[in-house]
Amino acid sequence: MGTKKEQPPTLVGIVQSSDYCFGDAPEDALQLDCGRSLRGVNIRYETYGTLNADKSNAILVEHALTGDAHLAGFHSNTDRKPGWWDAQVGPGRPFDTDKYFIICSNILGGCSGSTGPSSIDPATGEPYRMNFPVITIADMVRAQKRLIDHLGIKKLLCVVGGSMGGMLACQWPILYPETVGSVAAIATAIQITAQSIAFNWVGREAIMADPGWNHGNYTEQPEKGLAIARMLAHITYLSDESMSNKFGRALQSTTDYSFNFGSDFRVESYLNHQGNSFVERFDANSYLYITRAIDYFDVSVKTNGDFRKAFEPVKCPFLVVSFSSDWLFPEYQSRTLTEILLENGNDVTFCNIQSGYGHDAFLLEYETLGKLMSGFLTNIEPEVKP
Amino acid sequence: MGTKKEQPPTLVGIVQSSDYCFGDAPEDALQLDCGRSLRGVNIRYETYGTLNADKSNAILVEHALTGDAHLAGFHSNTDRKPGWWDAQVGPGRPFDTDKYFIICSNILGGCSGSTGPSSIDPATGEPYRMNFPVITIADMVRAQKRLIDHLGIKKLLCVVGGSMGGMLACQWPILYPETVGSVAAIATAIQITAQSIAFNWVGREAIMADPGWNHGNYTEQPEKGLAIARMLAHITYLSDESMSNKFGRALQSTTDYSFNFGSDFRVESYLNHQGNSFVERFDANSYLYITRAIDYFDVSVKTNGDFRKAFEPVKCPFLVVSFSSDWLFPEYQSRTLTEILLENGNDVTFCNIQSGYGHDAFLLEYETLGKLMSGFLTNIEPEVKP
Repeated sequence: MGTKKEQPPTLVGIVQSSDYCFGDAPEDALQLDCGRSLRGVNIRYETYGTLNADKSNAILVEHALTGDAHLAGFHSNTDRKPGWWDAQVGPGRPFDTDKYFIICSNILGGCSGSTGPSSIDPATGEPYRMNFPVITIADMVRAQKRLIDHLGIKKLLCVVGGSMGGMLACQWPILYPETVGSVAAIATAIQITAQSIAFNWVGREAIMADPGWNHGNYTEQPEKGLAIARMLAHITYLSDESMSNKFGRALQSTTDYSFNFGSDFRVESYLNHQGNSFVERFDANSYLYITRAIDYFDVSVKTNGDFRKAFEPVKCPFLVVSFSSDWLFPEYQSRTLTEILLENGNDVTFCNIQSGYGHDAFLLEYETLGKLMSGFLTNIEPEVKP
Repeated sequence: MGTKKEQPPTLVGIVQSSDYCFGDAPEDALQLDCGRSLRGVNIRYETYGTLNADKSNAILVEHALTGDAHLAGFHSNTDRKPGWWDAQVGPGRPFDTDKYFIICSNILGGCSGSTGPSSIDPATGEPYRMNFPVITIADMVRAQKRLIDHLGIKKLLCVVGGSMGGMLACQWPILYPETVGSVAAIATAIQITAQSIAFNWVGREAIMADPGWNHGNYTEQPEKGLAIARMLAHITYLSDESMSNKFGRALQSTTDYSFNFGSDFRVESYLNHQGNSFVERFDANSYLYITRAIDYFDVSVKTNGDFRKAFEPVKCPFLVVSFSSDWLFPEYQSRTLTEILLENGNDVTFCNIQSGYGHDAFLLEYETLGKLMSGFLTNIEPEVKP
């Protein structure tokens, strides 16, 4: 999420993404929580390592709100930035490519290759835009299940995810208990707070208030609205402490206040940069749909708000990790998940990692988190056949 | 700030506001930190109680960002909402109108009677709009000093303020040490954090991104941008805890998700209401100027960042109050102020009030805060001559 901290060099090299398309036939369409269905669904994904003969070494990694299938490595020799969780992937790393077959897929509703609001609606030949159905985290998981079936994998060794990715990781064994061997739910929650719903609301309102949004029918991105939504969200990914350490009240280039409304403070320039670069890479309508799915996320929707009952079919072990300064997905939410799982008799490892990096810590504290994940994965399956 | 909590009935009755205009002559102009000056400055103010013969019973109360001079009571018999700190004002209350003469003035840059961006520039006969100079908290205090001089008050018994008002309260004795008998600085800071600068930045960007803002030259308010800024700010006035308690994930009127982008959740409707009602009462350009003044606030600007030295001329006693769940002006900022004052040998009372209401607690926890303020004021001057 843009905060710079020295990351180790990539071990993965050049990777290619793949596409899996399904649901062309009406009976094969993806049925959604809203009651609608989707046909001609594409799922963009990348894999790392080799699927073993009995297809028992697969790990599914779930990305966050604005992430994508590009988990690690480069797409070309001229790429400057590796995949979003590169530090965790490669020989000897937690997602050990010598042992495991790692899959990362862009979520349904996204804008990085998988079907989303910017995709062509096969029924009209036009982009869906705001005619795209309002999807849920469960719908995203249902789409991924088609991919996992397509790959011939009967059981995933682990589903791992941070932030929104952790929501998908938690939803997976509830929908498909037989398919999930274990879950690592990192910096996440089984329901977001009223405060987070509020921040998402303001972000979406900023996008939809931009006349360039044009009810979703833009040809150029609604760049001001989208940048505002991103800047706001970005504040919630950091912490008071990390912002104080990184920026404090330092001025950008002037030695004194400019006495105008430009970006005097370094933190203001930084946010501007975050906002502007986001506009270049992320679709505004996708942002609306995915934040709505996050708001709606509730695994207890079929059990009348009873979380213990929702997790009842889930027997697999969990790793639950929070970060001490994460105020977007606070520690108490991870504790709640842990308590539910313990009540249900699941094997749970919970750790609240001390970190000043806020929510971004799930990307930045890669060493501490990596050790936890390595240990967890090794315990799950000590003798993986490569 | 809109959060409902039962408040006691008003004791003040009908009040009228007054205006003091100064600076018509060039030599009388208000000199500002930016190097410019203002002429024909109006300050709107209200008073409660009676100024005693030796003018020694005056308390100046400073309002927050979007507050005004209307501290207590009603303006007319049809008024439904009393002044913003009504619970603290009246016979037997902390700001005891039987003992004290209470003054509250709308700040320079405001939009509730005092000169601000929406006022007429005497030099052009047109509203200032964005030609209004970028003012500072110190400039606001300088304008208030003219009012205090005009009222013939040589020394204020106390300057009291919460939030941004606390910044003015801290700035007062630094500029005019002889004029201030004591300070009550509540839910405030002597410098805002990078995180707060960031939130202010996003709010201003939302206003200025609204085409209706038109570089400040609007005839109708840029309502979407201003509402977005307000909704965002409003989240920072509450706490995760208070939002969970007040709204949780309750839905507004539907029994199930609507699967669209309207306000499904009660917290979304609430924010919408806050945003829309703000547009009716507060000028967008004023919001830009006042938040910038908050960003810029730094009492150490003349002492090269040395806060101890900045407070050196200040010998008066302080009451410093923070609230445990206030994350906009966290407890540690009040502790910093307290430590500086203690190092300087000031008489300081510090209290961190346990409250779940977030920053709004300075308005909502009126009983606990009132007892602290009563005790402090009584200690300062046990025998006030009415």
